[in-house]
Amino acid sequence: MAEKKLVEAITSMSEDFAQWYTDVVKKAELIDYSNVKGCMVIKPAGYAIWENIQRQLDERFKATGVENVYMPMFIPESLLQKEKDHVEGFAPEVAWVTHGGLNPLQERMCVRPTSETLFCDFYKGDIHSYRDLPKVYNQWCSVVRWEKETRPFLRSREFLWQEGHTAHATAKEAEERTEQMLNIYADFCEEVLAIPVIKGRKTEKEKFAGAHATYSIEALMHDGKALQSGTSHNFGDGFAKAFGIQFTDKDNQLKYVHQTSWGVSTRIIGAIIMVHGDDSGLVLPPKIAPTQIMIIPIQQKKEGVLDKAYELREKLGSFRVKVDDSDKSPGWKFSEQEMRGIPLRVEIGPKDIEAGKCVICRRDTREKVETALEQLEKTVEELLAQMQSDMLKRAKKHLEEHTYTALNREDFEKIFQEKTGFVKAMWCGEMACEEAIKENMAVTSRCMPFKQECLSDTCVYCGKPAKKMVYWGKAY
Amino acid sequence: MAEKKLVEAITSMSEDFAQWYTDVVKKAELIDYSNVKGCMVIKPAGYAIWENIQRQLDERFKATGVENVYMPMFIPESLLQKEKDHVEGFAPEVAWVTHGGLNPLQERMCVRPTSETLFCDFYKGDIHSYRDLPKVYNQWCSVVRWEKETRPFLRSREFLWQEGHTAHATAKEAEERTEQMLNIYADFCEEVLAIPVIKGRKTEKEKFAGAHATYSIEALMHDGKALQSGTSHNFGDGFAKAFGIQFTDKDNQLKYVHQTSWGVSTRIIGAIIMVHGDDSGLVLPPKIAPTQIMIIPIQQKKEGVLDKAYELREKLGSFRVKVDDSDKSPGWKFSEQEMRGIPLRVEIGPKDIEAGKCVICRRDTREKVETALEQLEKTVEELLAQMQSDMLKRAKKHLEEHTYTALNREDFEKIFQEKTGFVKAMWCGEMACEEAIKENMAVTSRCMPFKQECLSDTCVYCGKPAKKMVYWGKAY
Repeated sequence: MAEKKLVEAITSMSEDFAQWYTDVVKKAELIDYSNVKGCMVIKPAGYAIWENIQRQLDERFKATGVENVYMPMFIPESLLQKEKDHVEGFAPEVAWVTHGGLNPLQERMCVRPTSETLFCDFYKGDIHSYRDLPKVYNQWCSVVRWEKETRPFLRSREFLWQEGHTAHATAKEAEERTEQMLNIYADFCEEVLAIPVIKGRKTEKEKFAGAHATYSIEALMHDGKALQSGTSHNFGDGFAKAFGIQFTDKDNQLKYVHQTSWGVSTRIIGAIIMVHGDDSGLVLPPKIAPTQIMIIPIQQKKEGVLDKAYELREKLGSFRVKVDDSDKSPGWKFSEQEMRGIPLRVEIGPKDIEAGKCVICRRDTREKVETALEQLEKTVEELLAQMQSDMLKRAKKHLEEHTYTALNREDFEKIFQEKTGFVKAMWCGEMACEEAIKENMAVTSRCMPFKQECLSDTCVYCGKPAKKMVYWGKAY
Repeated sequence: MAEKKLVEAITSMSEDFAQWYTDVVKKAELIDYSNVKGCMVIKPAGYAIWENIQRQLDERFKATGVENVYMPMFIPESLLQKEKDHVEGFAPEVAWVTHGGLNPLQERMCVRPTSETLFCDFYKGDIHSYRDLPKVYNQWCSVVRWEKETRPFLRSREFLWQEGHTAHATAKEAEERTEQMLNIYADFCEEVLAIPVIKGRKTEKEKFAGAHATYSIEALMHDGKALQSGTSHNFGDGFAKAFGIQFTDKDNQLKYVHQTSWGVSTRIIGAIIMVHGDDSGLVLPPKIAPTQIMIIPIQQKKEGVLDKAYELREKLGSFRVKVDDSDKSPGWKFSEQEMRGIPLRVEIGPKDIEAGKCVICRRDTREKVETALEQLEKTVEELLAQMQSDMLKRAKKHLEEHTYTALNREDFEKIFQEKTGFVKAMWCGEMACEEAIKENMAVTSRCMPFKQECLSDTCVYCGKPAKKMVYWGKAY
């Protein structure tokens, strides 16, 4: 009976979604809590997902001319204070280093919550002429934000991310880069993570501290809550003026650069879990799964079974494949493979070997397919592709079915009382109105989508003339 | 004349080696100094070297079963203090975080100088049975040590590294892993970085804080000074006892695990510079060079020249190749390619195109080879392989020619007065004697090499019976 523990221990989604999430991250061995409050240990199964995200995003970045660099992890207090809005946004939640070794520091430093100020300080010394532009730099690192409430991947005092920081000669080029990176994030989510996203611009209230404009991609989780999954900021020349980053242009005039920054973090692993997971655990899209196929031998002590399993692993060498040859029972191994979200399970036992076939089971649909061993490679390839595309289709359907339209305040409030999801509604563009919505309804503007629709002429909440269509939702 | 500035500005090695080093790291654009004292900005050319090191080392690690993870960057003070020797070694040089946001922390935390304590704390909760062993984890991250004197790559308050931390059921297995990782480092240095190293064990005085035994690889720089380029530690069950990491073995007995840790850092980029560089700048071994070939068009404004350069880039697509199509002069571009250590330069101009050939120049020997364009790919491949192997040969020759033997104190002192390099000499094994050598001669024991020779029966310094042959040297 001990064998069933793994599966029994997980709370069902419908019963308690938050507990289900916590169970999955623990039971799928993605993370562990650490002795350092609010910080997590990312275990091999979790880190391998991040490595795959890194590799595939990094390739997409480099194809557009991005170069990787590394900045110090500390920011002297005076540097953090150079851009007024920025310091106001971040100072309340940074960790402060006050001593080096046995001595107090002359000036305290924070551990980077984000590195705009460091990049600006560097660019100030490194950019002189139009020939030095554009700078399209990125770094993979960890950042620290001293949050009060934390949850694995979603909100953690330390998390891993990439942060791109660019400098351009013109406002137009900066705007193009801001949008280009948002598109890279959106395409990556759809094509690799099988997560459809809404692309749009953040309102003034929700934009990044110090940005001229913030764009984001917003995904819808299984429980109907939104998760901001990537952001791209256009700073205009605001930081350049605060830091004095000037260059001599072709016309021999001294000008300020225009800057952008953009980032995706380990938070996106939370999105993978909450978009695709089910009551048996994690379900990983094949393109991001560290292990795509688990071969599970049946009656493995019988002669030839394990050898056959290893032979199949060899045969499937172009995929990420493993054999579970531990001394656990097949049922236990099945549960583990399901909990860990491994896309395909190949079952092979004495009878299968005799018949020259095996059984393949898809993680997402539980569908079982029998295949001749000589067809195995081809079948696996097709199944992985099918699963990847089906997962996106299902996530799209969920997004569509949980996106509502509200034309007046009554509907707007009613929908959020009865349902969870995105609500599309017109908005007057006033921050006071947005704040009232948040205050009274506990929902926030997620973004003003690039694909605007004119649903009506008046603001859904205050009735004033409408300026923008907004996606509203409850967010992580 | 401005065009010559780049080359003129670099100090020659023989004139002032330390200044030459600083010039190279700056002029080859590997790093920049930052506003954060003692921390460096690693620029694209420097970071790309680190990315190549990471990728190739990581592959070698994973082939032996290493899994990557990520631990928090903070260590609570009480956790750092659990292993007595360890805290004594590191506490004087850590950065302390005392405030989170606006509030003082209940317990201060240091930014990790190394993560033994965090891994131990994690293993204590994660290891229960022999089935949970071995744990062979590694992380790529940055660490902080509050050094007083800093130099780019060689000694920096923050640096990048990997740190492996393993736990095993037996002492034998831990010892095997310690040696296995040292061998991986040594092979990587020889095969990829073209740097020959001495493998050996550190003396008690020089071993890692808390280790049972420390092994290191020691390389010899061009100026005759040693650089410790990688270390591997066997902790025995010392940390396990301090942290209470126990498991139930197959015989149903509760036992302590045996642990190891091993690391290589960005310091090794300093070794590449100081082993291979010359008075024109950096010289990068082809296997680690981010750009292996720079194609430089001659008279690039003439019709067809740039097109031909791009065509050759296409043709050489299986290598890491770039075209320098900037509007600088060819001479300037040559200097830059040399300063940056790019292994091969391909020169192509109107006359070459007419004759269906081009000129290839090797960075290390300056040797020029003319080759027919249809032979280009093959010639480049051969030249890169030849250069890689010649660089190792030259470094080996330098190591041999600067390794001396001392049989008595007079010779020992005389050699270090007149020469720089390694000195092989017998040692009594007493820490007091080793300390006297350091005090009086300003040299340190580098390691007790695995390949022991019996040079004489008595200690080179104190004349007592000899126990070990030691490599002595001045070290970075």
